[in-house]
Amino acid sequence: MGKIGAWLIGARGSLASTAVIGARAIAHDLAGSNGLVTALPEIAALPLVGMDDIVFGGWDVVSDPILHKARVLAHDDTAIPPGLVAALEDDLLAVDMRVRPGVLDHAPRSGSSALRAARGRRETLAGTLKRLGEDLEQFRADHALETVVVVNVASTEPPLELGAEHDRLDGLDRLIHADRRAAFRPSMLYAYAALAHGFPYVNFTPSIGVEPPALQQLGRKQGVPFYGCDGKTGETLVKTVLAPLFRCRNLEVLSWDGFNILGGGDGEVLSHSRHRESKLRSKSNVLAPTLGYRPQGKVSIDYVPALGNWKTAWDHILFRGFLGTKMTAQFIWQGCDSILAAPLVLDLIRLAEYAHRRGESGQMTQLACFFKKPMGVEVHSFMAQFETLLEYVERHRATFGVRRG
Amino acid sequence: MGKIGAWLIGARGSLASTAVIGARAIAHDLAGSNGLVTALPEIAALPLVGMDDIVFGGWDVVSDPILHKARVLAHDDTAIPPGLVAALEDDLLAVDMRVRPGVLDHAPRSGSSALRAARGRRETLAGTLKRLGEDLEQFRADHALETVVVVNVASTEPPLELGAEHDRLDGLDRLIHADRRAAFRPSMLYAYAALAHGFPYVNFTPSIGVEPPALQQLGRKQGVPFYGCDGKTGETLVKTVLAPLFRCRNLEVLSWDGFNILGGGDGEVLSHSRHRESKLRSKSNVLAPTLGYRPQGKVSIDYVPALGNWKTAWDHILFRGFLGTKMTAQFIWQGCDSILAAPLVLDLIRLAEYAHRRGESGQMTQLACFFKKPMGVEVHSFMAQFETLLEYVERHRATFGVRRG
Amino acid sequence: MGKIGAWLIGARGSLASTAVIGARAIAHDLAGSNGLVTALPEIAALPLVGMDDIVFGGWDVVSDPILHKARVLAHDDTAIPPGLVAALEDDLLAVDMRVRPGVLDHAPRSGSSALRAARGRRETLAGTLKRLGEDLEQFRADHALETVVVVNVASTEPPLELGAEHDRLDGLDRLIHADRRAAFRPSMLYAYAALAHGFPYVNFTPSIGVEPPALQQLGRKQGVPFYGCDGKTGETLVKTVLAPLFRCRNLEVLSWDGFNILGGGDGEVLSHSRHRESKLRSKSNVLAPTLGYRPQGKVSIDYVPALGNWKTAWDHILFRGFLGTKMTAQFIWQGCDSILAAPLVLDLIRLAEYAHRRGESGQMTQLACFFKKPMGVEVHSFMAQFETLLEYVERHRATFGVRRG
Amino acid sequence: MGKIGAWLIGARGSLASTAVIGARAIAHDLAGSNGLVTALPEIAALPLVGMDDIVFGGWDVVSDPILHKARVLAHDDTAIPPGLVAALEDDLLAVDMRVRPGVLDHAPRSGSSALRAARGRRETLAGTLKRLGEDLEQFRADHALETVVVVNVASTEPPLELGAEHDRLDGLDRLIHADRRAAFRPSMLYAYAALAHGFPYVNFTPSIGVEPPALQQLGRKQGVPFYGCDGKTGETLVKTVLAPLFRCRNLEVLSWDGFNILGGGDGEVLSHSRHRESKLRSKSNVLAPTLGYRPQGKVSIDYVPALGNWKTAWDHILFRGFLGTKMTAQFIWQGCDSILAAPLVLDLIRLAEYAHRRGESGQMTQLACFFKKPMGVEVHSFMAQFETLLEYVERHRATFGVRRG
Repeated sequence: MGKIGAWLIGARGSLASTAVIGARAIAHDLAGSNGLVTALPEIAALPLVGMDDIVFGGWDVVSDPILHKARVLAHDDTAIPPGLVAALEDDLLAVDMRVRPGVLDHAPRSGSSALRAARGRRETLAGTLKRLGEDLEQFRADHALETVVVVNVASTEPPLELGAEHDRLDGLDRLIHADRRAAFRPSMLYAYAALAHGFPYVNFTPSIGVEPPALQQLGRKQGVPFYGCDGKTGETLVKTVLAPLFRCRNLEVLSWDGFNILGGGDGEVLSHSRHRESKLRSKSNVLAPTLGYRPQGKVSIDYVPALGNWKTAWDHILFRGFLGTKMTAQFIWQGCDSILAAPLVLDLIRLAEYAHRRGESGQMTQLACFFKKPMGVEVHSFMAQFETLLEYVERHRATFGVRRG
Repeated sequence: MGKIGAWLIGARGSLASTAVIGARAIAHDLAGSNGLVTALPEIAALPLVGMDDIVFGGWDVVSDPILHKARVLAHDDTAIPPGLVAALEDDLLAVDMRVRPGVLDHAPRSGSSALRAARGRRETLAGTLKRLGEDLEQFRADHALETVVVVNVASTEPPLELGAEHDRLDGLDRLIHADRRAAFRPSMLYAYAALAHGFPYVNFTPSIGVEPPALQQLGRKQGVPFYGCDGKTGETLVKTVLAPLFRCRNLEVLSWDGFNILGGGDGEVLSHSRHRESKLRSKSNVLAPTLGYRPQGKVSIDYVPALGNWKTAWDHILFRGFLGTKMTAQFIWQGCDSILAAPLVLDLIRLAEYAHRRGESGQMTQLACFFKKPMGVEVHSFMAQFETLLEYVERHRATFGVRRG
Repeated sequence: MGKIGAWLIGARGSLASTAVIGARAIAHDLAGSNGLVTALPEIAALPLVGMDDIVFGGWDVVSDPILHKARVLAHDDTAIPPGLVAALEDDLLAVDMRVRPGVLDHAPRSGSSALRAARGRRETLAGTLKRLGEDLEQFRADHALETVVVVNVASTEPPLELGAEHDRLDGLDRLIHADRRAAFRPSMLYAYAALAHGFPYVNFTPSIGVEPPALQQLGRKQGVPFYGCDGKTGETLVKTVLAPLFRCRNLEVLSWDGFNILGGGDGEVLSHSRHRESKLRSKSNVLAPTLGYRPQGKVSIDYVPALGNWKTAWDHILFRGFLGTKMTAQFIWQGCDSILAAPLVLDLIRLAEYAHRRGESGQMTQLACFFKKPMGVEVHSFMAQFETLLEYVERHRATFGVRRG
Repeated sequence: MGKIGAWLIGARGSLASTAVIGARAIAHDLAGSNGLVTALPEIAALPLVGMDDIVFGGWDVVSDPILHKARVLAHDDTAIPPGLVAALEDDLLAVDMRVRPGVLDHAPRSGSSALRAARGRRETLAGTLKRLGEDLEQFRADHALETVVVVNVASTEPPLELGAEHDRLDGLDRLIHADRRAAFRPSMLYAYAALAHGFPYVNFTPSIGVEPPALQQLGRKQGVPFYGCDGKTGETLVKTVLAPLFRCRNLEVLSWDGFNILGGGDGEVLSHSRHRESKLRSKSNVLAPTLGYRPQGKVSIDYVPALGNWKTAWDHILFRGFLGTKMTAQFIWQGCDSILAAPLVLDLIRLAEYAHRRGESGQMTQLACFFKKPMGVEVHSFMAQFETLLEYVERHRATFGVRRG
């Protein structure tokens, strides 16, 4: 097997930078496999692409180089060992050279003012899609890649109300031809370009991405797999592990409140209420499917720049036990945002490439355990979702039975 | 189906009192089924005995009546609604009448000094076993019971080193005939009496109970089911729910420290280091089987009388993620000891009676999810254990398919 | 010394009910003095009024009797021992008889619809003030009281922008004569009535109360003491104890986030954003005066009905120490709202009556330690504020030197 | 004013290394004054020695150089910015050259086996004292120092029972001449040498140090100031800030439990039960003097190597408020041990030198706020202790009134 491409949307952000650093560090044997689900013996049984066979590139709307972001992560945020960044300077510069201009949101506050002035208004939707597609094809050709997995790790966009035109591909194409920009978010355009060119697409953010039925239709038509959305890395991960406990012990959850504080790029974007809304939507719906009812309480996210790339969540659960007695559980999760998410991005690249190689297309529901809002899956219990992944692996091992050397 | 008996070892303790109050409250329709696993729709599919068909009795070494304990739980500990205790006075008095003298531990501090003076030294092991067996038979006869489930909910005993004689029933019988008291703990005698008379036995405590192979041989010989040990109600429950998360996400747990403070009767007994040792043994071994290694850190239990029947656990988990970055998770569990445990005792009575009725004998491994140290089961993940219970139910439903009216 | 009156605004609320229960329980020797600052030996050195010499009455806009509220507090919220409520039924009924109709806010959601329909629109401001004054005089006359201390413990009102007319008493009087209702909140009318009739006034809530300079001018003119606002009972109390630690150790607080969840009547009112704004204003300004700068982070309050009268606050403090290293402190405060506040209400009644008896008038700055937003005091450190109270007591003890028998 | 010396006992430990790094970083203008109490404007009013005028040296029983420890702190523990260590290499090497062999404890596990073999048995107590004194005099002479402040920052020793001979200097001298090693701990010998040579001595550890009355007599005789013991940097600091809140609000603390986990050198020593005992003694006695009674609960310390130089404390406080209702407060303190302590060590050097320069001798009670167990001071409230320091500064400013340029 030859090399494959990983094309990151938001390639100069903290998460993409950390994913690239990690992959290159592992390729150079400078880091272990902590945090990688695909490094677990039961998953590693699949013949997945090696870290040294992944070539990184991507889109971004900012010009600040990856190396600069990496240094901030190492020195200001104590998120990454400084020595690692120093050792990988050349690799990061090389990836940075492969970053192409992205698509600006028409929403305020997205992208640098320079970029916004230069572009954005002049390019038509059709023109944008053409440009994006060429970027992908060029990337594949330049590096003789077997395929390219496109992963959205860009900042969260505001939500978008979908209309009837988003339901079918022909409707969507009409919107494109009419250049109806208000009916699109950049994440949809990226997804369109990827799928139209036959590349797997994964949405790691709460942005809309491949959610419109028309885009999923496009994916199936092109025979490519896709999935999302919103990587499950912290508070929600713990929630979907703990909630089944209350269900299985018949303890009635009266209220479940979650408070999240985080700094970093994601935190800043989420401090704007419309962007935060997308995030809160995917965080707020994980309990009811498990518990069978919706407890009181809510989830909030606050931006605290001083936290840098770190986030802290405090969850307070009031539950009613035997004879009506009220009791309390609380948890505090203190994690480094990019460090928690980056290995999952690499896992998804590997698993999406594998599915694509196996000829699978459509929703990759076997990946539900990676997401807060897994497409086409009603089950939110993390352990049950993980079981599904194991069953997928088992099924494929049974068929092929060999591990890639 | 007729009535069945539930014979509680430690019948006047907080846990037994709460279990009795709960069962009677449900029987009188004064309380709901919160906290009862057997009330979950998927488990309730089995034809389990109804709460109003359980007659309670038991052994104890103290003379303080259940009603008094119930009032302390209601008024001092705010564990139980005071109105419930008032409404059930007659029921509690009736159960109290059926409490028979238990067996005193030779360890210091067990039982009242009066009881200790009156008995303990004079009775032989064989005499004790005979007396206990007669208590059980009398109870069955008095109430025309189909069977009697014996459940140990007494205070934790100090550990006992087992020898070769404990391995086989004939060896154990020789120890009894030789009246070798030092080779026994009361929990073993209770278990012997139950099994010898053909009654299911469940050990809800960390005491030795039915652990000696000789006793399990007795159980199998008599064709009765048994199980234990140590009900999983709080900190350990959460641990066995959370630990799989770290395993499945390949996050390396560097240290896991658990601090428990509790008051109440159990807390007091556990404040004595030899008794605490039994408890810590069953609490300390749940992580390694799930994680595949033993992280740093330890579990401690401190007695804080002012907490009454309440307990608080704080767990601190230091884990290493991607690129070696260290992160932290913490949880705080504030529960009412008896309220958490009592419904499980009722669940176990119902499920043990059902297994017995179905003719099953030996270890009831389907009940692993109820215990910190489940006999014959290596899996400690709560969700995996619960899955086993569901499969058991499913299997039996498939065979019989009817719900008891 | 004879009896004095305590006239509670919001007399049928949880806080007023708890204060009345407490005072009567102490008078009947059914409860101890836990939580009462005036019971501390150093404060008790003043000749303060005895609990059995306080007659309670007040205003409210709801008709649900105190006894009902007391039972909810005892049975649903486990806030008060049920036995206490039963023992004090007659006392509570007697106080309830002395509750007079209050003043409805024109803001939505205040008061029952019946009350709102019956009154509110018809009564002029002058008419309202006349009626309120008569209520107070009647109360004094009926019980031959030496004075009446008026304390606002009603639900939080929305904030009010003050204009130039609120600066001087003649301006305020013009607003009254012109019946300019939009320039008033009920708390101002209650305060006006109290002060105009020569009665001390204390505002325990974040509502505007005696804040307008014109009202303070009235108080000084009438020679009565007054104070506020917003009792310091939980999260803010802990903040004003902890913040000086960071200041005195030169640890730079980068961010301080506080999350509050609470149920009960206060929680419900605060779930409405305009009402919550008043609360958040008084909660948000306590750090900067102590630290000398305003750290990042914010305070939030969420209404969780299931918590009943209980509240939980989680505060997360990120601070920078030596060599720039970031560290973290967190605290969790789980208290019963009314139980924390009620003894302070009794303390304030006693200390305000004492100041009045001593002929003091104007702002009672010695009471700063009881308030989140103490009038005329820049110091927010709780310990420094308490020191001021001790100095006040010391000064008065030195002058009079005798303790009331 | 010329230069002064700072002679650190345990000069190659984490704390000493951090203090040296900090002082040199500030001297080179590479770090700010965060965490330094003497940098607060109200304390900086005193003419204290500048950071660039402090020459560091000291004793240690290990040979691992400071630079190595500094790199561990920077790279493994993320306690110190790695760039700072790189920039200060020369300074650290220079200090390391001035480290002289210390005194081995006869207790097991102290010092390297090489050192233990080489010395320890052969040197008499008198010989040790002579050697230590010569080290100090040589240091002073080599660098033309005005004085030398000796500070104990070595690992905690096991406790020592004091006898009548420890009460008076002549008794102590008899023990020395008789070479009664079991009557001494190394910290006492260091203190003796410092005081005998007229150098101020500060004990930042829970070891016995200058506690024996005979040593204090020596200090007063020589006219030098001294103080201790056990720097107050984390959990105990917060306790002595929070406990007064409960006292001043008349909230009865029923139980106060503190659980500490820490790694690093100090953690390892404290994992040995006899050493831990010294620590627990100074941690356990701070509540009763403030509260007026001793609540239930205890303090524990556990060694968790994976935490590195970081420590986490969780404290659980159960308190009884009005009408007997029980409530709970908890705090979690996550700090870097050396980073919290090092600036205080520098503060103490500066304040002890100042006191010495002013001709003060004996206990420096003005420094109580720095210690868990402040000599000759009954007050444990941090804020009250800090007030004492402010009064000391105010008194001295009033006399001299000038700030050193």
